Amino acid sequence: MTFELHPRLAADSLHLGDLPLCQLRLMNDQRFYWLLLIPRLADAIEVTDLNEQQYVQMWQEVRQLAEVIKPLTSADKLNVATLGNMVPQLHLHLIARFKSDAAWPGPIWGVGSAEHYTDADISQLKSALQQACDHLPIHWV
Amino acid sequence: MTFELHPRLAADSLHLGDLPLCQLRLMNDQRFYWLLLIPRLADAIEVTDLNEQQYVQMWQEVRQLAEVIKPLTSADKLNVATLGNMVPQLHLHLIARFKSDAAWPGPIWGVGSAEHYTDADISQLKSALQQACDHLPIHWV
Repeated sequence: MTFELHPRLAADSLHLGDLPLCQLRLMNDQRFYWLLLIPRLADAIEVTDLNEQQYVQMWQEVRQLAEVIKPLTSADKLNVATLGNMVPQLHLHLIARFKSDAAWPGPIWGVGSAEHYTDADISQLKSALQQACDHLPIHWV
Repeated sequence: MTFELHPRLAADSLHLGDLPLCQLRLMNDQRFYWLLLIPRLADAIEVTDLNEQQYVQMWQEVRQLAEVIKPLTSADKLNVATLGNMVPQLHLHLIARFKSDAAWPGPIWGVGSAEHYTDADISQLKSALQQACDHLPIHWV
C-alpha cells in the first residue's frame, strides 16, 4: 500500500511541500492561518498507528513548524490537534490563533464557511513561510 | 517557580494520578471519556515552551495512554489536542470519541454543559483505567 491523500483533504487544502515524514498543506480558508501535516503513510488513522520512530518524527515536525509560525504570525496562541472524526486519514492541525479571529476563543472546526485565498495571497503566504523555514528540510512544491 | 494547576482546570476536572512529566486528570463530564495531561512545569503555555526532552516525554505519555484507552473504551476515534485559548496553562486533551456521543462528529469543546460523574462512576472508571495501565509508571492518587 502506498500513501494516498484523502480526497476531502485534497479538496479543502493546498499542497505546500513535504517534510521528511509529513505532507505540509494549507487549509484554503483565509480566515485562519491553518496548516495540516499528514504523515505519508498508508492506512494511518490513530497516532498510535505510527511506529515509535514515525511518532517521534511527526511531533518533531510539528515542533519545528510551531517554532517558525508563532513568531512569523505573531499568533496569540497555537492550536495543535488531531481529531479525524470526519476524515479518518491521520492528519494534524497546526493553527495560529488570534484573539481577533473568526472563532476565538472557540475551536475553529465547523465554524462558518471557508473563504478561499486568492492566488496572490497564497503566493505571499507561501513565500514568507518558505523564507522562515529555510533551516528546515522541507521540499517545497 | 513551581507548578501550580490553573484554577479552571482544577475546578473542571479530577486528579487521577501522575505520570513522570504530566498530571493526569479526568474532565468531570460523564458525557465524554475525556482525559487531560498537564506537564508539571511552571509557565508552560505553548508546546514549544518545553525543552526537547520534556516535549518528547509529553508525547510519549500521550502515546502510552492512547494505547490503553483505545482498546479499553472501544472508542471509534481518539482526539488529541492542545488549544489553550481559554486556559493558557499548557494542557493536552485525550478524548475517546464515539459515533454515539453528544458532539460527534464535531469537536467536544463548548458543546452543551458538563454532566458530573457520581462518586461511584468515578471509582469504577478509575479502577478500570488503573488496571489497564498497570504496566505504566503512574502514581495514582
